[in-house]
Amino acid sequence: MNSDFTPYYAVIFTSTQTDMLEGYVEMAQQMEALAKQQTGFIGIDSARNAVGITVSYWETLEAIQQWKQHTDHLMAQQKGIKKWYAHYNVKICKVEREYDFIKK
Amino acid sequence: MNSDFTPYYAVIFTSTQTDMLEGYVEMAQQMEALAKQQTGFIGIDSARNAVGITVSYWETLEAIQQWKQHTDHLMAQQKGIKKWYAHYNVKICKVEREYDFIKK
Repeated sequence: MNSDFTPYYAVIFTSTQTDMLEGYVEMAQQMEALAKQQTGFIGIDSARNAVGITVSYWETLEAIQQWKQHTDHLMAQQKGIKKWYAHYNVKICKVEREYDFIKK
Repeated sequence: MNSDFTPYYAVIFTSTQTDMLEGYVEMAQQMEALAKQQTGFIGIDSARNAVGITVSYWETLEAIQQWKQHTDHLMAQQKGIKKWYAHYNVKICKVEREYDFIKK
């Protein structure tokens, strides 16, 4: 592997939803836009079928902690718990290696 | 956080597909069934919209390495490169912390 690789962090958020989804899409879009403005944010991947998976990437654990505690994000988390999510799981991970394939 | 937490590993596989998807769904199902039989396999989450995200969880890096080198999986990887995937990225991660919410 690449010896120049600098470890970074991934937050794997998996969820299943309730059937009370009013306001969810708008909030998810707002939170993604807000996350992108945070110090230490690297990127985000998201997809949903039966389960939703959002993986966000961060330079440091401190950046993840600050985003978790962001006032607007805390409000979204509260609404998520009260209304939108039947279940969620959050995993904080250190990305140790990475490789890509791109079709020529 | 839980001081009893035992770190484990996550493989984050993100991909975009070509429009040549013949045989893809069957192969994906076969690979998921096969992965579940491997030593050290813990679980898998998968969703696809514009981007596909599959996260598999493993007890050790050795288990990930063995799965990567499994003969049937190598064949699937070759077909994926030749045919199904326009791009993919693989991240090997150490899961350091985790928490859950389950609606009562």
